[in-house]
Amino acid sequence: MTQQPLLDFRSDTVTKPDEAMRAAMASAEVADDVLEHDPTMRALEERVAGLLGTEAALWVPSGSMGNLIALFLHLRRGDRFLAAHSSHVLDNELGTAAWIAGGMPYAMDWDAGPGRMSAAAIHDVAGSEAPYHGLRTTLLSLENSHNGAGGTVMPLGEHMQLVAAARECRLRVHLDGARLWNASVALGVAPAELAVGVDTVQVCLSKGLGAPVGSVVAGTEEFVAEARRVRKMLGGGVRQGGILAAAGLVALDRIDDLADDHANAKLLAEGLTELGWSVRTPETNIVLAAVPDLRNAIKMLGRLGIQTGPMSGQVRFVTHRDVSTADVKDALHRVGSAS
Amino acid sequence: MTQQPLLDFRSDTVTKPDEAMRAAMASAEVADDVLEHDPTMRALEERVAGLLGTEAALWVPSGSMGNLIALFLHLRRGDRFLAAHSSHVLDNELGTAAWIAGGMPYAMDWDAGPGRMSAAAIHDVAGSEAPYHGLRTTLLSLENSHNGAGGTVMPLGEHMQLVAAARECRLRVHLDGARLWNASVALGVAPAELAVGVDTVQVCLSKGLGAPVGSVVAGTEEFVAEARRVRKMLGGGVRQGGILAAAGLVALDRIDDLADDHANAKLLAEGLTELGWSVRTPETNIVLAAVPDLRNAIKMLGRLGIQTGPMSGQVRFVTHRDVSTADVKDALHRVGSAS
Amino acid sequence: MTQQPLLDFRSDTVTKPDEAMRAAMASAEVADDVLEHDPTMRALEERVAGLLGTEAALWVPSGSMGNLIALFLHLRRGDRFLAAHSSHVLDNELGTAAWIAGGMPYAMDWDAGPGRMSAAAIHDVAGSEAPYHGLRTTLLSLENSHNGAGGTVMPLGEHMQLVAAARECRLRVHLDGARLWNASVALGVAPAELAVGVDTVQVCLSKGLGAPVGSVVAGTEEFVAEARRVRKMLGGGVRQGGILAAAGLVALDRIDDLADDHANAKLLAEGLTELGWSVRTPETNIVLAAVPDLRNAIKMLGRLGIQTGPMSGQVRFVTHRDVSTADVKDALHRVGSAS
Amino acid sequence: MTQQPLLDFRSDTVTKPDEAMRAAMASAEVADDVLEHDPTMRALEERVAGLLGTEAALWVPSGSMGNLIALFLHLRRGDRFLAAHSSHVLDNELGTAAWIAGGMPYAMDWDAGPGRMSAAAIHDVAGSEAPYHGLRTTLLSLENSHNGAGGTVMPLGEHMQLVAAARECRLRVHLDGARLWNASVALGVAPAELAVGVDTVQVCLSKGLGAPVGSVVAGTEEFVAEARRVRKMLGGGVRQGGILAAAGLVALDRIDDLADDHANAKLLAEGLTELGWSVRTPETNIVLAAVPDLRNAIKMLGRLGIQTGPMSGQVRFVTHRDVSTADVKDALHRVGSAS
Repeated sequence: MTQQPLLDFRSDTVTKPDEAMRAAMASAEVADDVLEHDPTMRALEERVAGLLGTEAALWVPSGSMGNLIALFLHLRRGDRFLAAHSSHVLDNELGTAAWIAGGMPYAMDWDAGPGRMSAAAIHDVAGSEAPYHGLRTTLLSLENSHNGAGGTVMPLGEHMQLVAAARECRLRVHLDGARLWNASVALGVAPAELAVGVDTVQVCLSKGLGAPVGSVVAGTEEFVAEARRVRKMLGGGVRQGGILAAAGLVALDRIDDLADDHANAKLLAEGLTELGWSVRTPETNIVLAAVPDLRNAIKMLGRLGIQTGPMSGQVRFVTHRDVSTADVKDALHRVGSAS
Repeated sequence: MTQQPLLDFRSDTVTKPDEAMRAAMASAEVADDVLEHDPTMRALEERVAGLLGTEAALWVPSGSMGNLIALFLHLRRGDRFLAAHSSHVLDNELGTAAWIAGGMPYAMDWDAGPGRMSAAAIHDVAGSEAPYHGLRTTLLSLENSHNGAGGTVMPLGEHMQLVAAARECRLRVHLDGARLWNASVALGVAPAELAVGVDTVQVCLSKGLGAPVGSVVAGTEEFVAEARRVRKMLGGGVRQGGILAAAGLVALDRIDDLADDHANAKLLAEGLTELGWSVRTPETNIVLAAVPDLRNAIKMLGRLGIQTGPMSGQVRFVTHRDVSTADVKDALHRVGSAS
Repeated sequence: MTQQPLLDFRSDTVTKPDEAMRAAMASAEVADDVLEHDPTMRALEERVAGLLGTEAALWVPSGSMGNLIALFLHLRRGDRFLAAHSSHVLDNELGTAAWIAGGMPYAMDWDAGPGRMSAAAIHDVAGSEAPYHGLRTTLLSLENSHNGAGGTVMPLGEHMQLVAAARECRLRVHLDGARLWNASVALGVAPAELAVGVDTVQVCLSKGLGAPVGSVVAGTEEFVAEARRVRKMLGGGVRQGGILAAAGLVALDRIDDLADDHANAKLLAEGLTELGWSVRTPETNIVLAAVPDLRNAIKMLGRLGIQTGPMSGQVRFVTHRDVSTADVKDALHRVGSAS
Repeated sequence: MTQQPLLDFRSDTVTKPDEAMRAAMASAEVADDVLEHDPTMRALEERVAGLLGTEAALWVPSGSMGNLIALFLHLRRGDRFLAAHSSHVLDNELGTAAWIAGGMPYAMDWDAGPGRMSAAAIHDVAGSEAPYHGLRTTLLSLENSHNGAGGTVMPLGEHMQLVAAARECRLRVHLDGARLWNASVALGVAPAELAVGVDTVQVCLSKGLGAPVGSVVAGTEEFVAEARRVRKMLGGGVRQGGILAAAGLVALDRIDDLADDHANAKLLAEGLTELGWSVRTPETNIVLAAVPDLRNAIKMLGRLGIQTGPMSGQVRFVTHRDVSTADVKDALHRVGSAS
């Protein structure tokens, strides 16, 4: 059984650059981006800013760094920020929102659906003025689609309500859009629409879009100028980064392909349900399955050559450009045969 | 109506030193505590260590500093720690658990009663080993009695279960015992029993016990030696602190008096209930009343000369040695007359 | 020889409150300073603000906390600040200027005398604009008198030049005036004159002035409002602090007495010089003696009942209100007899 | 005159990947390095560990991140560390050694030559035990070659003396070897010899060796395991990083080529000296020229098409694989003609 090819559903981060992307990297025009702004970097950043409707944008080596830079610049030391329970900035960035950015996290209940909070809840928590010796709440951090909740999507209307509630409570808004492309495709609206009203947004190139390395954090010109400094602080200033930016530019041509991943996720969820699994219907490219014994379930799947991982106490399957519809069917077949 | 004397239920921190305490301060033997250990400080620290059953103890200017020092020494930068929702270290210390101590807070639901979590919940959150790129959870921070929940008390058996769960998950345990004396009196067990199994504990002298300034953080000799350095870092090393320690020694003679505050709180709660208020039965000296409009309720009480404050979205009344049974009756009379 | 009374020259921090000061503490009017501003605290803070010519002032438990609060509020994380080599904020505050305040220290050479830098040096280091990827220098931290240099005094004209240079380089200015009273008495100018042009200043009550605990940090109303929050963060917010403030008010009546300490320091230095010691002429109350073997010298003095300590590689003798002229003569006699 | 080709002496970081390096990147085997260790990353890291004689090594996006990770892991918050005046970790990393790593920097005088300190100075500063309320000095950070001093080289014997002094003072040792390859070539000793006795070392691939992006930090297996976590914290964990590692592997084949850069630097220095410039004889690939007006000098050179930059108050020329001997002669000709 171990002879079977591995089917890798661990994450969309495992996608590898294809030939076209490698060719783009090999021929990229470059310069020292710390000293003068690499031209391919500049092209990528301008293109992302255009897609997101922001004044400017900045390449960073990872989504974690993009989020960290934004939180660092929004938060004074000791400020409280709100994020939905199980958000990436809370659970998956090694506590840096707290000890580097300086923020005091407040995890919001999912009172509006998986991964989603209500505008009313924002008012409850941040709506009243704190006394001088109280915490200042100054930031709302959104995540769309929401990884920890299983790739759930926040619709445009809801996004607007949350941003409005934040403004009424004098909060800034950051959007962790590591998979904003997926939300955009799932909802059929432009990425810029899903970024309306936010101060900063981070998007990844190295997940479903398939670039090997890189994310982009976007906002005002002023924000990006400061973000460039903070990137350097954190050690994320690179030299001839155009090599990586070239891959990013290719990746951005592939946003529409994410629809295939979503279809594959749906197919996988339906198949697992038919096989008796307890699976939440996917809204994008992430399928979460509730199992009695998480550790054993992942091991069992591993023995079938199906690579997965844990997320929020469930088995997480992620579809992406390096698993095909045939692969999904193969996986379902393996699970079915093993039952 | 404003001619009536003010009845101050805002906090037990408003208690003022009485003549005996002032006399003790005025005659205290002192020395430079940074250079050589002030003798009255030493006496106070030894007495508190005895009461708590720890190897050693250290005076600090405030409970916030005591908690901060303990968290700082327990946590590496980026470590996650658990605390019940609305704990003082989460909500009332201006985010320092995050940006100074370096911890990533995780607020535990109250699945075992107000201010209280279950051992099972600790296992759920901290029981499985994180992957290398995951958060490390390393500390459980308890609070007994729990201020934000309305002075609720964690019984001894439950305390033991939580400490055991923490050990099974390889967590250290800090106990915020700002009002541990109240829990001790309410349960009729010694303070040391309520500190069994914890690594560090902080107790306050300036709340119900009436000392003007000061708390104590306690643990092993090694912990206290390091805590002394961190206290100096934070600016809490003082010179002839024996003046304040002398007040603390007097305060420690008054632990049993807290029973009066508890009786007064009960009287107040019963009276308010009779008057139609929605009041939680107090376990110690804190009465929380749920009201439709928090801001207006506090204002209305203020117009009656009854000083209170907000806590966890409710009106908080705190009884203490500077409000008598007669004062409580007076307050109830004022509220009843105004209705 | 050990029967002889101890003569304590370790620091002016060892001064103990006398009867008058104790009486003031015992009768001080107090209130909860976190909740509402203790009246004696307020009186002390207003008096210090008046003495320093600032809009407002805030009591803090230690000079270290006062400096830390000021640096924290002046510095963004990563900003560089300038201070004379061996300044207290560099050498004696356990690195908090860096890891809590967030500053990158730059130690200035003593190119204008012991503990003193020139205006030209400030221009050299901070005068040119850094590139975007360079450090931002934003603060000059002065210390007058300068402890590490042996209580040296920066004259008024020089102070003005440094402040002017700082302004030309767009630096804010903090003044560590732990012993500003000494500088004021030595120069015969008012404390407020020595604080002209600075943004913030810290002064100590527990050194030569003899209060048991406390310092004050002063600046604009806006600064003090923020400083109050940061004091709470660091755990320095106290309750009935009026007890300590009362001692501070008495201490402020004693500024002129510092002239006696200066005279005693001069007497000590002259005596030691006659005995063949290599001693720098004191400008205030600190005498530094260069010795071949620092550790042994301090031990030898200790065997004579003369307590001292190390400072900047030399033996430091500090005169203060608890060592008299007779004590100084006694000390000289002991040293002379032992030679 | 602006028609002349630009001669770029700003930094060796401007070197661009050539065809061979681009081909290696285009064909690199890759995997998700966060999830499982990219195979080309692993090959690069093992090769560097071999070159440096360490147990293990870790790729990082920049030298700044490599230094920051090492300092973070060596230093507890508030610890003091020593580094030669004008070291990169002091002047060129935006203060992160202080506010992120948590260290209190102490800049050592150049008492043993440009960029170099003596073993005696280490003993003077760190040799005596601090009292409990004193700073703990725990780390020596070396830099070889030393950028801020003009690429000066610390010879092997001197390196050994400093490491020995550090050990006697119980200091750990980090080596910023951003240009260790240059020191190695200049001295004719293996890189591993120059790393003997240190705990951690950082080397760059993107300077003279010509890789577009990347540095490596090396030490024990245990250090590297922790460093991997800290890299993730800072946002430096990348996915298919093998693309960049492939360039690094090619770069490592080119260490010997650095001798050409050194020869070119010597040629440049001699030429400038003949033209009357005040130039320090280069030990590696950096030429510093003292000029009366730094800003104008750099501008003037810029008008001649000669790109340079400021370093330690002088004009810095850096030779590298993208400036040839002919380019150096051309630069000298332009300067000579303009005089």
